[in-house]
Amino acid sequence: MDVVRTNRELQQRSDAMRASGRRVALVPTMGALHEGHLSLVAEGRARADEVWVSIFVNPTQFNEASDLDAYPRTWEADLAACEAAGVDLVFAPTVSEMYPDGADTTVQAGALSRPLCGSARPGHFDGVTTIVSKLLLAAKPHVAVFGEKDFQQLAVIRRMVCDLNFDVEVIGGATIREPDGLALSSRNLRLDAEARAQAVVLARALEAADDAVASGEREAETILALVRREIEKAPRAVIDYAELRDPDSLEPAPARLEGPTLLALAVLLTPADGDTDDAVRLIDNRMLCAHAFAEDPR
Amino acid sequence: MDVVRTNRELQQRSDAMRASGRRVALVPTMGALHEGHLSLVAEGRARADEVWVSIFVNPTQFNEASDLDAYPRTWEADLAACEAAGVDLVFAPTVSEMYPDGADTTVQAGALSRPLCGSARPGHFDGVTTIVSKLLLAAKPHVAVFGEKDFQQLAVIRRMVCDLNFDVEVIGGATIREPDGLALSSRNLRLDAEARAQAVVLARALEAADDAVASGEREAETILALVRREIEKAPRAVIDYAELRDPDSLEPAPARLEGPTLLALAVLLTPADGDTDDAVRLIDNRMLCAHAFAEDPR
Repeated sequence: MDVVRTNRELQQRSDAMRASGRRVALVPTMGALHEGHLSLVAEGRARADEVWVSIFVNPTQFNEASDLDAYPRTWEADLAACEAAGVDLVFAPTVSEMYPDGADTTVQAGALSRPLCGSARPGHFDGVTTIVSKLLLAAKPHVAVFGEKDFQQLAVIRRMVCDLNFDVEVIGGATIREPDGLALSSRNLRLDAEARAQAVVLARALEAADDAVASGEREAETILALVRREIEKAPRAVIDYAELRDPDSLEPAPARLEGPTLLALAVLLTPADGDTDDAVRLIDNRMLCAHAFAEDPR
Repeated sequence: MDVVRTNRELQQRSDAMRASGRRVALVPTMGALHEGHLSLVAEGRARADEVWVSIFVNPTQFNEASDLDAYPRTWEADLAACEAAGVDLVFAPTVSEMYPDGADTTVQAGALSRPLCGSARPGHFDGVTTIVSKLLLAAKPHVAVFGEKDFQQLAVIRRMVCDLNFDVEVIGGATIREPDGLALSSRNLRLDAEARAQAVVLARALEAADDAVASGEREAETILALVRREIEKAPRAVIDYAELRDPDSLEPAPARLEGPTLLALAVLLTPADGDTDDAVRLIDNRMLCAHAFAEDPR
């Protein structure tokens, strides 16, 4: 497994792959790799001859310096995990390689970036579209794989790839969960034992909402009340948002659900002293029972 | 010579070129082709196996609808000129091909886009960086050629290509001029005979400034006064801007010039009734006598 540090070298590797008719899948990550990332590697492996993982903690997508500083960094373990997963190449550029002196051209996401996490984290998605553009132009992959846990990010990236003509197939990889249902996230590393135990309420809330829809419930407010009640069972959980949205436009869902609907959650897990400034922000989402809607007579 | 209408087909052509080890040069244009464009084709020909010309009047870089409507369109003549110049492929997409329904991801230029034409034409350069990104991602060329007449545009594009990791060599082609010195521009087609004759003052002003610097003049205000005096000799010319700028940063030049300096002009050529709303806006520029500075003892 090779470790590449510069855009130029990566482009040359990509050109060599293409010249020999071989396909590249890129899995962009910010490191602190877990089984969720490795499932994206497997998705890439199924679609390409080589799988490349980028590891770059992108400063421009953190709207708060404290969040950037606290983001977990586990370089040696990440390399070992990639090696074990059969990754062919790790791209690990420096900040100055990705943001050279004077760099100020940015890629700006549109309407899909405004609600949900875009509202809670101003500038976040423009940081994402900018760095993903740079990574796609450095690696020039045939396929790029992103996790569905970050549903809005995936939607914003799909829109960007379409809008700007990136010649890459974007694949969404299913969310991987702990046995109790907690979605895998690098941020889980920052939870103390009690917060970790309580974090299960996100998954339980999604499950409860899905069960309700499967049983015929269609009133958005009733479903959201159920979701809030589940989350509020955890004393250390503070809801950032809990919303029902159209999965394509991310517009608010109608008061009475009429078709497959995204339930998107962002929840702060506070430290024992309750200070939300030091909280760990977790997100999760679920498409509410598309199956139930498919059976509707409409 | 082939005419291609879709991004997908162009990407496939580009992949086929690369697979056979052949190089592509792209010359992005808005049509109304003249000898200036054809000199860019020649620059591309010298550096690649095929030269592709894109012809697309990009609506998002026009800050005024009237300017977009008035922009010359000469499709049949453009095709004939490309054919005669040995162009291998013309890419002529529709507006909806380049801006599909709902497209709202944009590429935003930074500091280099703010002064000069960026100040006079709000949003113009973001339209340029967005469409050039789309064209570069559709054609995936090895080389892209832009005219130096649009000096600031070239600087903004070079910055973008560096910042976002576009794997393309950007070439600037020298400005081509009429016998009297007027820089070739598609907009010249819109000048009536009297305005056309008076438009020569842009080139004369650049020449006068260069002569002054060659003779030892270094005071920015003295040089700009000379420039204004030359332009004001044309009763139908109205200065939009006349500025001395650092050619790399586009920051204002110091009061006393210390090295090679860009003189950038934008001048409105008004109709006979003097209505600036119907004026034709021409730009031109010159690097003031780099040679003179090279001889300075500093």
